[in-house]
Amino acid sequence: MVGLCLLSTDYFPAMLIQGKDYRSVWMEHGVVKLVDQRLLPHKLEVMSCKSFRETAQAIKQMAVRGAGAIGVAAGYAMAQAVLEAPEANFTSFLEEAANTIRSTRPTAHDLFYAVARVLKAALSAPSPELARQEAVRMAHRLADENAKAGEAIGRVGMSLLQNTMRILTHCNTGWLAFGDWGSALSPIYQAHQCGIRLFVYVTETRPRAQGAKLTAWELRQAEIPHAVIADMAAGYFFQRREIDCVMVGADRIAANGDVANKVGTYMLAVLAKQHHVPFYVAAPRSTFDLSTPQGSAIPIEERESEEVLCVSGLTREGKLEQVRVAPEGSPAKNPAFDVTPASLVTSFITEAGVIEPRAHLIARFVHARDAASVS
Amino acid sequence: MVGLCLLSTDYFPAMLIQGKDYRSVWMEHGVVKLVDQRLLPHKLEVMSCKSFRETAQAIKQMAVRGAGAIGVAAGYAMAQAVLEAPEANFTSFLEEAANTIRSTRPTAHDLFYAVARVLKAALSAPSPELARQEAVRMAHRLADENAKAGEAIGRVGMSLLQNTMRILTHCNTGWLAFGDWGSALSPIYQAHQCGIRLFVYVTETRPRAQGAKLTAWELRQAEIPHAVIADMAAGYFFQRREIDCVMVGADRIAANGDVANKVGTYMLAVLAKQHHVPFYVAAPRSTFDLSTPQGSAIPIEERESEEVLCVSGLTREGKLEQVRVAPEGSPAKNPAFDVTPASLVTSFITEAGVIEPRAHLIARFVHARDAASVS
Repeated sequence: MVGLCLLSTDYFPAMLIQGKDYRSVWMEHGVVKLVDQRLLPHKLEVMSCKSFRETAQAIKQMAVRGAGAIGVAAGYAMAQAVLEAPEANFTSFLEEAANTIRSTRPTAHDLFYAVARVLKAALSAPSPELARQEAVRMAHRLADENAKAGEAIGRVGMSLLQNTMRILTHCNTGWLAFGDWGSALSPIYQAHQCGIRLFVYVTETRPRAQGAKLTAWELRQAEIPHAVIADMAAGYFFQRREIDCVMVGADRIAANGDVANKVGTYMLAVLAKQHHVPFYVAAPRSTFDLSTPQGSAIPIEERESEEVLCVSGLTREGKLEQVRVAPEGSPAKNPAFDVTPASLVTSFITEAGVIEPRAHLIARFVHARDAASVS
Repeated sequence: MVGLCLLSTDYFPAMLIQGKDYRSVWMEHGVVKLVDQRLLPHKLEVMSCKSFRETAQAIKQMAVRGAGAIGVAAGYAMAQAVLEAPEANFTSFLEEAANTIRSTRPTAHDLFYAVARVLKAALSAPSPELARQEAVRMAHRLADENAKAGEAIGRVGMSLLQNTMRILTHCNTGWLAFGDWGSALSPIYQAHQCGIRLFVYVTETRPRAQGAKLTAWELRQAEIPHAVIADMAAGYFFQRREIDCVMVGADRIAANGDVANKVGTYMLAVLAKQHHVPFYVAAPRSTFDLSTPQGSAIPIEERESEEVLCVSGLTREGKLEQVRVAPEGSPAKNPAFDVTPASLVTSFITEAGVIEPRAHLIARFVHARDAASVS
């Protein structure tokens, strides 16, 4: 069983829900479909975005979130823009559309990467008609690349996991957050499928609780043993030596290896260092951004206070409801990400192998991508 | 104005709400009254506990919480038990009642301290009639001592605060958590009253959100500038050098200076050390426990999963409701406290002055208490 899994190289889908293979984002006949992550784990609903503006709104309002999934959605949004562009002012329409899509979320590099690649494919085509074909083809290709990268990250990361290990993860980095499989959850899925017994500590991940809502839901579907914990209870489990490694994803990785990821990642990295626990960051090439020299240059999104002051969930009567936790009118500050310096990262888990957090190794890896995407 | 505040030695109450001076817990004609903290900040309701068992239940169910306030409530509960004890089996009734009250919460030392002192006062009296008088007198005395300690901690701690300082605090350590004034919030209240401008970062403090619910509410009443943050966003503000010191309370301090406090305190202490930010623990003598040699010997309460998986708050229609955040049936782990080693504590702020976290200094300070309580 283990051998079979290790030898598998063909892509196979991560997630069956009620017998159906789901991806978090896909496109059918020019309509972008996505699992509305704002409703999970309480409702599984697929949202349809008929125009690039609707898809951009879905990204902005976090119906779709997670670096990889944002990238896939942004690629499809850009392809939709190409489909919608009037021939009269084709190029300027595309450039404005690209700006609209880019302005939805500032931190995740996959978004910028996907927009650039689809835009380039369209603008390189000799006619609007061919541009439409090329844009759609590229958006599908990016979705597939992301899904395959997720699967490959799982195979690579699995080599770091041994039987009975207890892994701490933060936010959601599973198939919902990605084309498929996920980043930091992918090694966990694949190890579990190979019969390696693991236990996952799932941080709630306030303010939006993607850990309690999405990761707990994914792990339950996959029947992987886990427990949700309050975010800062992580320290207690580090102290009791109940955490063998930390696996997180990334929204953007700078040229020097600094990592922007969901707010709280930095504190977990400091604690992991303090307790001599390996701290792994799982991410595909598309998350690495050589044009950003170090973490301090990564724009950090500041989101609305309401996310901190309120919580949404299911009432006893089964109604989805938002409740206000803090007093009416209390102020809040809500940075959505923080930056973990490369010095706290043990290694990156990528689709091309495990990489140490050093600038020249990152550059070599990313340049291999550029070579690949030219072909 | 500053001089006046610094020179004040008479006790004056911390909190006026709608013109009325509130304490979080008090006793009238044998009935224990307490502000039901489970309903704040959405409703201010006073709960009446007519018997020691009702008061013990209020502690167990966290209608009253916070080390100091638990101590005051436990002292009154013990006094109620003395009032209720039948003369036939007076002593055994009291000892059973003491066990019932002690079994409500395992971590906060103030609870054990208050039960012991009221029990001793009752058992030292020559008759049940005098025992009743002595027990009630002692319970009131403990409440006053706690309130005065809170005020003195404020005066002492204020010396550490300067104009424009930004303070990070965790959980709730204000007048609600204490006889009056509070522990870690008391210096902030007193500095503010003296015109020192401060800004307070208030961690939400999941799972029960005492920061977002209670500290934000207290600071709003006092008009002290603050912002609620997601717990692990603290790291982001440390990185940006926007935190000048950390002030937290304590549930129990061991003989060697290790501190049990609300879960998450340890992570904040590690981050403070990492960023060379002073980490102050404000607590009165009654929180120090010389019979516990070090932190690993402090019992840590494990509370129910529901606290992590659900959140309570106010719906848009103004109804107090609990919503489930995680999927139905998800498992959770919920340690309510963690232990911060003495090595991460800059100093203790006590009613008798600032104390370094060293065993012999703690012992000297606590022995001075024992001398005082014999008188």
